[in-house]
Parts: sequence; C-alpha cells; structure tokens
Amino acid sequence: MSDISQHAEAGVYQRQGFGTSLTPQGNVALLIVDLVVGFADPQVFGGGNIPGAIARTVDALAVARLKGWPVAHSRIVYADDGSDDNIFSIKVPGMATLTEDNPQSAIVPELAPLPGELVVRKVVPSAFFGTQLAPWLAQRGIQTLLVAGAVTSGCVRASVVDAMSYGFRPLVLSDCVGDRAVGPHDASLFDLQQKYAAVMPLADALKAIEQHCR
Amino acid sequence: MSDISQHAEAGVYQRQGFGTSLTPQGNVALLIVDLVVGFADPQVFGGGNIPGAIARTVDALAVARLKGWPVAHSRIVYADDGSDDNIFSIKVPGMATLTEDNPQSAIVPELAPLPGELVVRKVVPSAFFGTQLAPWLAQRGIQTLLVAGAVTSGCVRASVVDAMSYGFRPLVLSDCVGDRAVGPHDASLFDLQQKYAAVMPLADALKAIEQHCR
Amino acid sequence: MSDISQHAEAGVYQRQGFGTSLTPQGNVALLIVDLVVGFADPQVFGGGNIPGAIARTVDALAVARLKGWPVAHSRIVYADDGSDDNIFSIKVPGMATLTEDNPQSAIVPELAPLPGELVVRKVVPSAFFGTQLAPWLAQRGIQTLLVAGAVTSGCVRASVVDAMSYGFRPLVLSDCVGDRAVGPHDASLFDLQQKYAAVMPLADALKAIEQHCR
Amino acid sequence: MSDISQHAEAGVYQRQGFGTSLTPQGNVALLIVDLVVGFADPQVFGGGNIPGAIARTVDALAVARLKGWPVAHSRIVYADDGSDDNIFSIKVPGMATLTEDNPQSAIVPELAPLPGELVVRKVVPSAFFGTQLAPWLAQRGIQTLLVAGAVTSGCVRASVVDAMSYGFRPLVLSDCVGDRAVGPHDASLFDLQQKYAAVMPLADALKAIEQHCR
Repeated sequence: MSDISQHAEAGVYQRQGFGTSLTPQGNVALLIVDLVVGFADPQVFGGGNIPGAIARTVDALAVARLKGWPVAHSRIVYADDGSDDNIFSIKVPGMATLTEDNPQSAIVPELAPLPGELVVRKVVPSAFFGTQLAPWLAQRGIQTLLVAGAVTSGCVRASVVDAMSYGFRPLVLSDCVGDRAVGPHDASLFDLQQKYAAVMPLADALKAIEQHCR
Repeated sequence: MSDISQHAEAGVYQRQGFGTSLTPQGNVALLIVDLVVGFADPQVFGGGNIPGAIARTVDALAVARLKGWPVAHSRIVYADDGSDDNIFSIKVPGMATLTEDNPQSAIVPELAPLPGELVVRKVVPSAFFGTQLAPWLAQRGIQTLLVAGAVTSGCVRASVVDAMSYGFRPLVLSDCVGDRAVGPHDASLFDLQQKYAAVMPLADALKAIEQHCR
Repeated sequence: MSDISQHAEAGVYQRQGFGTSLTPQGNVALLIVDLVVGFADPQVFGGGNIPGAIARTVDALAVARLKGWPVAHSRIVYADDGSDDNIFSIKVPGMATLTEDNPQSAIVPELAPLPGELVVRKVVPSAFFGTQLAPWLAQRGIQTLLVAGAVTSGCVRASVVDAMSYGFRPLVLSDCVGDRAVGPHDASLFDLQQKYAAVMPLADALKAIEQHCR
Repeated sequence: MSDISQHAEAGVYQRQGFGTSLTPQGNVALLIVDLVVGFADPQVFGGGNIPGAIARTVDALAVARLKGWPVAHSRIVYADDGSDDNIFSIKVPGMATLTEDNPQSAIVPELAPLPGELVVRKVVPSAFFGTQLAPWLAQRGIQTLLVAGAVTSGCVRASVVDAMSYGFRPLVLSDCVGDRAVGPHDASLFDLQQKYAAVMPLADALKAIEQHCR
C-alpha cells in the first residue's frame, strides 16, 4: 500500500478504532475471483499488476490443493442472447461480451479448475451475489476464506465485503490480487484492511493459518 | 473528484470501455445510508466532509418528500448483549457499541424519518444485506435509487454495489455523501462512477430525473 | 383444491384472518418453474397432473409473449463433476444427474425459451435463491409475477414464497402448476392461497390483470 | 405423519428416489421459529398442536444450552407505522399488528432467550430471509441445524427450505414443531422428509448427533 495520501489519513482511522487484526479460524477455503483470460489481457479488462497476481495465485492454488482446502473460482458469464444484460453491463458494455464460449471468459490455463472445485458464473461484481458460493462454503463448515483474483477495486473488493457479511473471515492475499490501475488497487487494499478483512501476502497468511487453525 | 493520481489513470478505464453514462428510469426512491449521530461526530465515526453531506441531504430529503418518492434510511444497530457481534465488529470494535438505545445510533435530528419511511437496522456495510430494503423497493416498482449518506468508501459504496446487483439504477448524489477522509471518498466516487452508478450532484440528478422519468 | 381434510380445517384460517385476496398491480412477468423433460417424465421426476400443467402453460406463455411481458424460466442444473452437490442432492440423489447436457434438464420443446427470455440455472428449490431472477424482475419494475411450473409442493412453492418475500405479488396459475402426487399439490395450493399468493386459473388471472393493471 | 392420503402416494416418491436419509454432521445449532405469544394463542395465530410443540421445545432448548450449541430465535416484528407492510401482511393483515411492543410478538416466557442467543426480527415466513441468521451460523462453522417452532406449514417450512438452500443440514424436530391445523402440519412434514430435511423426534435427533457429530 504505497499511496501516500492514504497513509496521511490513516490517523483518523486509528483514532476511531479501525483496522483491528483478524485472525484465521476453523476450516479454510480459497476463492479465486475472475482470473479469466479477458482480465489477464491489458487490451481487454486487464493490465496493471494483474500478471503478478496471477503468477502468485498459482502458488496459492498449489498450496490449497496440497492442504485439501476447498477451492472456488468465479467467472463473469453473460447469456448469449443479451437476456441478462444488467446495470453492470450498462456501465461497462464490454462485460456482456463475456459469454460462455468467448475465450476471454475462460479461466487462465495456469489456474484451470480441477474436478470438484466450484466454478460460479456471475453477472455482478461479487462472487457471492446470485451464486451458490455462500451455501457451498457453509456446507463445508468453512470459517476462513483466502481471497485472490482481479480486480482489487472491483470484483475482489465486492466479494470480500460479501464474504464478511456472510460470516466468513476474509484473508485478502495482497500479492495475489491485482488491478488494472495502481491507485484504485491501493485505495481498496487500504479500505479492506481498515474495515473488512485481514490483508497480507500469501506467505504471511500461511503462517497465520498454521498458527491459528490447529 | 480531486484525486490527481486517479485522474492520471482514467485513461485505461476509458480505453477499456468503463464509465458509460447511466440514466434514471421509472419510479424513483431515496436511500439515506447511516446518517446517524455517531457518524456525524468526528470523535466517534465521523469527520471529513460528512457535515456538508448531511446539510445537502436535508435538501434531498425535502425534495423526495415533496415528490412523494419512497424514502429509506439505514442505521447500524447491534444487539445489547453482543449476540450478533460479527466480522465487521471484530475489525471495528466500536461498531458493536451502536446499540438500539445508544444515542449515537439515532438518525440525526435534521433527517429524522417520518411515519411511512422505512428504517432498516443492519450490522454489515450494505443497507441491502440481511434487510428488507430490496423487497421494499421492488414492492413499489422502484427502478432508480438516489443514494446519500456516509461513509462514501464504506456503507455507501457497499450499498451502491448491492443496489445495482439487485437491479436498481443507483444515482449517487456526490454532494450528499461524505467520508471521514477525503482520499477514500474520492477513490470510491471514482470507482462508483467508472463501474456501478451515475455520480452527480443533487441538482443534476433532479434534472436528469425530470428529463428521463416522465 | 379437492382435499376434504383441508377444507375441513379452513375455518381456523378464516377466523384468524388468513386468505385475504391479493390483486395484481403494476408491471407483470411470467415465471415458469422447472418444466424440463425430466419433470415431464413419470419415470424420472414427473407424473400426476404435470402434463396438463404443461399444456396449459403453453397458453400462458403465448399470452405473455403477445402482451410483451418479461418471461423467465428455471432449470435445475448441477455441475458435471459433482462439485456443487448439496443438501438437496443428498435428499434426492437423482437431482444431481440433471447436468447441463443431460436431455432431462432441457426445457420441454413446447415451452422452449425465445431469445431475450431469462433462463436461470439452480441447484435448490427456489428459482430465486442463488440466481439473478429477483434483480432481473426489479430492473424491469415488475410488481406482479404469474407463476407456472412443477412441482407445486416443491420448486413452485419455494419460488412463490421467495417471490412474495422479495416484494413481488405472486399469482399462482392453478391450472399451470402440477405435481407428481395430488395430495401434496392440493395441500400446497391451500397453503399458498391462505398465506402467500393469489391462486386462480389462467383465465381468471388474465381478467384480474385486465382489471387492475391499467 | 398420520395422513393416509399422503402415505398412499409415498410410492411415487420412493420410485423416484426421494426421501434419502440425511445425517447430522459437524457443529450443531438450534433454531426456534416464531414461538411467540400470538402463535401460542388459538385466538390469535395459534391452536392445533402448537402447545405440545412448545412444551417439547423447552426440552430441546435445555439440551442445546447444556451442550453449548448456539441458539437462535425468530420473531415476526412489523414497524409501528406500517412502513414495512408487505405482501405477507396483505394476505394475512393481522401479521402487521405484531409490532415490537405488542405482547403477542414476545417469545413465550418458557423459551425466553438468554444473553448471547440470537433473536432475529422478520416480516416474511423464512427466518433466514432479510436477517443475519445465515451469516451468524456460518460465522460459527455450523453445519447442522435443529429446527423447532411454529407453524410447520408456514414459517418452519420456509425456514427449513432456506436452511438447506444456505448449505445447512436441517433436522426438523417432529415433536417440537406445531401448526394450527393438522392437515397442513402433516403435509409439510411429509414434503420436508421427502425432499429437504431429516424429520425425527428430539430423542432420535440427539441420538443421531451423538453418533455422527463426534
């Protein structure tokens, strides 16, 4: 979090009691938000630090599979016939081109889901909204959710806010999330850390889980 | 939106097709998020440009009442006995002190609800999550939602993202929303305008409604 | 509603003020619940009066298209790899065989969706739960929802309860809903009429809409 | 489940693979639906076998407290000013009289909540819809939900359908749920057992938990 103007304002948050630490607890799962071809491509919806986030999410995914943690992926997928066009696709018309068979809606090859991993399709920012993600986590008794993906100031942030609203402890993996622009990336990590989630690199998250999740 | 660093990055959003305009349509309602005593007080959760937002929301509320638009207010209200403490109150422990009878959880006097206006209690950022707000709007055939309140980077933003996810067109009244710190305020207005909502001062919103909502 | 035992108990409902009439209002849409091949086949999940319900839903669909009312369909669709197996598919294991390419999960040919009609996939009883149905209706300013489909005591009922909870006025088309067994069909129509919806044949629903929805 | 006509139809359910057993698993909680004064009173919304259900729920609550299982209660509570009147209160106008201070909306004394037990207010059938119940359970890693309360064919049933949709295994305590009329009570227990939940008396549920939840 390099944004000086935000650091400059951290004082008011501290005085008002924001930013308390949040430790992992109970069963752990990994959510990978929208790391699809179109968000890896700077000519479509990608750019910024997303490539690095994908590279590091490969590591996060490998750890989750090794540990046997449930893994969920989200994709933005609109209907072919425009029947589910919505406010989001009015604001960002290109979203509606992410149909099931558009190669840009496919998860990037290096993070391709294995059988048994959940893949939710969505037409809104949050991976929880209008999907089976929250029930799928609850069914498995998950209490802590590692979050990777793109973009930090969009679908990642919305998913993290919903994760905590749904009762799951979000650990945002700061080196596994990326955005097309660094300002919004930094601003959202600041907000997430102050109000909604623990924010730390993958390595620190693994240590915290080791320490707190028996 | 004065944040230079964000303006500097607006190019990538424009190239990728973000920030399309969103016009009001159909029936209109007004949502006032968390303008309670504790968020008006810089010693509690307030500060920044929230006082100005409250003053201007008085005007927005007067217009809504004059026009007969449905009005909904939200308050953060936790149980007296700690039974509904949650991830949000772990991150920001002071939130859990906003109990029903704590004067800081009361809506500020100048925006006191009238009979028939909905008041939803919540323990999460979004005024929609775990409340009757979406059904209440749907029951009235509302398609456009004016949004005022605090804080821009927190409960306002989460409510706007949910509003658009629930199918309502959000018009964020830029002079009726405020935050304890200007950096997060500006960053969230930028994101909201690029991806989720129309963002404009009250006066412009009224003109747009006049023009588009028969 | 032919179940004598239920008629016998109608008195207590009347004394306690249940069963008030509910009139249509505002914009109208049609929801067709799970009228897929597998629910039309008595050897799979069908039987009872479902064939008659399908035949009459053909008429309802024709009217809706003629009137320009938005039409939504639901299908039960589980993932091919078992990744979204859930409590419902534990209770009724055959449900999980309704995968995307299983012909039994396809909407029956006589009700095949036209472009622009919404089709939601679900893995739970309600067509609203974990889908985009409520936002899709809200976006269109719908206030009244005609409901057809199968089965009355299952996915239809759950969808009607959610419809009214989401703020939409449900009109259950009694000749367009069916069930594999008449007892549960009758019992659910009784409950729906007493507590949650207007229940009437298609012809009466059209008259009521004519009268109340300008 | 004494309804002969329903037993007569059980064959089709068996042939189609319904009614598989569902075992408890993981952490357990108890939900008590709407056991308030007005639903205990045959002159208001009560009657039938609700008194017996209350008596037996006293035992269920005692066990839950002894075992340290989280306990949640629901109440129907409408606003004093009619601002949240909805489709439910159109169908059953008396519901809207259950305001916060109406003695009929209070939980019956023998089941009065202790500090730390969640009490959710709702204006719809399901205790999950528009409340914090699902997040509260998820936060505690609950996987199995015992359900008691009233009425079987109304708020209990809607809550059970939502419980399983949200990913929790519902165990409906057949001697702890009641209804104003026996026909709908029996019909709903039949449906719940066939499709959505395990249904058994408290004693059997405790044995099953002993056996399966380490």
